[in-house]
Order: sequence, then C-alpha cells, then structure tokens
Amino acid sequence: MKLYFSPLSCSLAARIALYEAGAEAEFVHVDRATKAMDDGGDYRTIHPLGVVPTLRLEDGELLTELAAILQYLAERFPEAGLAPVDLRGRTELRKWLSFVGTELHKGTFFPLFDRSASEAVKAYALSKVEPRLSWLADQLEGRDYLLGQFSVADAYLITTLHWCLATPVRLETWPTLKAYLKRGLARPHVARAIAEEKPLYMEDLARLGEHVPGTAGQPARISSSP
Amino acid sequence: MKLYFSPLSCSLAARIALYEAGAEAEFVHVDRATKAMDDGGDYRTIHPLGVVPTLRLEDGELLTELAAILQYLAERFPEAGLAPVDLRGRTELRKWLSFVGTELHKGTFFPLFDRSASEAVKAYALSKVEPRLSWLADQLEGRDYLLGQFSVADAYLITTLHWCLATPVRLETWPTLKAYLKRGLARPHVARAIAEEKPLYMEDLARLGEHVPGTAGQPARISSSP
Repeated sequence: MKLYFSPLSCSLAARIALYEAGAEAEFVHVDRATKAMDDGGDYRTIHPLGVVPTLRLEDGELLTELAAILQYLAERFPEAGLAPVDLRGRTELRKWLSFVGTELHKGTFFPLFDRSASEAVKAYALSKVEPRLSWLADQLEGRDYLLGQFSVADAYLITTLHWCLATPVRLETWPTLKAYLKRGLARPHVARAIAEEKPLYMEDLARLGEHVPGTAGQPARISSSP
Repeated sequence: MKLYFSPLSCSLAARIALYEAGAEAEFVHVDRATKAMDDGGDYRTIHPLGVVPTLRLEDGELLTELAAILQYLAERFPEAGLAPVDLRGRTELRKWLSFVGTELHKGTFFPLFDRSASEAVKAYALSKVEPRLSWLADQLEGRDYLLGQFSVADAYLITTLHWCLATPVRLETWPTLKAYLKRGLARPHVARAIAEEKPLYMEDLARLGEHVPGTAGQPARISSSP
C-alpha cells in the first residue's frame, strides 16, 4: 500500500492506523501548498480536489476519504482490534468518525488552517468550538478512549486535537480532553508517526516562510487544509 | 424506532432510508430554531448539541450522526440492498458518506443555512462549491447512482443537493447533477418523504416569518443548520 499524505494533516490518522495495524506501507509526501509530490509529480493527478489522504492498494485502486480509509484498515487487519465487530459497536465507531469529521475537522478546524479564509470566517469557526468540545469532554469522562479501548476513531480525534497547538483553541479549558490527548500522544505508534511527520511539516512551513508552532511564540499559520 | 428530525434537514436522509428499508418508525418533529419537540419537550435533553437526526432504538438506545444511522439501517435491513456487503463496496459507500458529510454538508451547505453566519462566511462557503460539485459531477457521469445502484449514500446526497433550491447554488451548471437529483426525487420513497416534510418545513419557516422557496421569488433563508 502507498499513503499520500501531507505532514500533520488529517492523513496523520491514516499513518497511525497503519502503524497500529502493523501494516506495510510506503508514504508519499504531498506539499500542502503546491500539491507537489516527492517525485515531482502533481498530486491532483491522483485526486483532482488535492485533498489528502489517498491510499493506493496493491492492485492500484485508490481509496479516498479518511473515514473510509480508517475503516478499511481496521477491517482488513482485524487482528489489530482497531474497530468493534458487532453492529452496535460499529455504529458507535461510525458516530465518532462522523462527529470528528464533520463537527470538528470540517466544521471547526478546516477554516482555521485555510489560507483563503478571512478573519471573519476564522472567528465563525472558533465560535463553534466551545459547545462541541464541551460535549465531547462530557462523553470522554471516565473513558480512556472513545469506545473504551483504542480504535481508528481515536487516531482521527488525536490527530484533530493535536491541531489545537497551532490554533487559538486552548485545550486547557477541558482537562478531560487534555488528558485524553496526552494519553494518545504517549502511544508508541502515535509518537512515532508524529516524530516522523514533524520535520516534514516544518520543512513545508519553512518553504512558505511561516511561523512554526512552539518556536515563534504565536500560533502557526498552516498553509492549507488540515 | 423513533426518528427525531427537522423537516428537510439532513435527517430527511434517515427518513428516506427508513422508507426504502420498509422499516417501522415514529417521527418526532424538532423545531429547527427553538429545538422544541412535538410534545413540547426540549430536544437538547435528547442531544445536548441540538443537532438532528437521532434514532431511538426499541431498547431506548440513542444513535446519533447521520452517517452512522444510515449504515445502521442498511445493515439491520440487509434485504433492502441499501449498502454493499463486500469490503471494497463498503469502503466505497463510506467514501461517499464522508464526502457528502464533510465537503458538501458541513463544508458548504451548513454555513449557508446558519443564522449565525455572516455574509462573509456564506461567501466563503460558496467559494468551495464549484470544485467540489464539478468533481462530483465527473464521478457521477454515466451512473444512475453513486455506487451504480441506489444506496444510503444517495439518500444523503439527494437530501443535500435538494438544498440547492434554497441557496444561490445553481444546479443547472452541472447537468449530470441536475439529472441525478431529478432521478432521485422521482423515487417513490424519496417523493413521499419530501411530500410529508415540506408542509412541516413551511410551518417552521412561517413561525419565523421567513421566505419559502418557490413562493417568494428569492432564495429562502433557513433558520438553522441543515
């Protein structure tokens, strides 16, 4: 398999799932701004909308949309236990993939990282944060992970909450979420995935002359969609 | 089962899926602005974020998030053939549920119907329409439905494209999408669902003193999230 990714974007969740599943994969770096791939090709020949991730299967088939890729990996590698197998459990997993994908990723974080979004748009996106994260914190109370034990939905949520670093969203407001993220980041496969992508992320940012989180004393502006 | 819905919002897709599956259900109307239910109760006691749909199962369990509810119905009523059963087919279904939920519903249409969104926010949302619908039209070329035959992903896409009526998005730009929507609206279960919800939608709007699409000569402002 081959994963087309942009560093620390939502495609990080697919890399985490691959590592947690113990699956073999190559990784193709897509520059978030130019859409240039490692080999100099244009990623839009793979996905015309330019959005990551895409997962290329051994037979050449291309899978897109993170929620679909995550469930594919969980079901292809069932021994990793990354998704429940009963109908209620599967439904609960899909609830979380949908909530993170729509209410958090697209409804909140996407505009915060979009260079075409004005300050008014970013303020609107930020206005959606509080009720959604407060509800999420209530749901996570007393649980280590969204479904009790780690699943691909956590790969997505950890990736998403990790973006708070580069936004005005202060996770300190929700100690449950802060503890959840800390727990997630401590997982060896998550830590490895981030350690590998962070230098690439900084290279992408440097090419754009942008601030880097944790070094510039102010939130980073990421150049394109998370 | 009991479906909590707001007329012509995304919960319409769950009603369509119930009808297509031949499933028995009651329907509880949630006023999109006040969140009051038919019986006078506050819907936020069912879902604190106030978003529809919620599906209450026979044992009282509450399912939320449309993509999860649609897959639940497809898998609970397999004889209706509303979802593929093989891994590749399931992955394709989930791709479409995710694309419609994130890129179209939350990323484009949600802000157009949100009373808290300024004109700048709506203009930003509209700027995302063209590439996404053009890509979608390319994908649908030569196909009756997203997966060839009707699935729950079509219930969601038909519901979403139907909102164009109340927005500045002119579906005439994409004849493939216009023909797709016409085909979908002609399905008896879809037509029934819309015919039942339309009067309720107009009542909700009338309570708000808003324009109604097709009668006021200009796009309707829907009061809350689609």
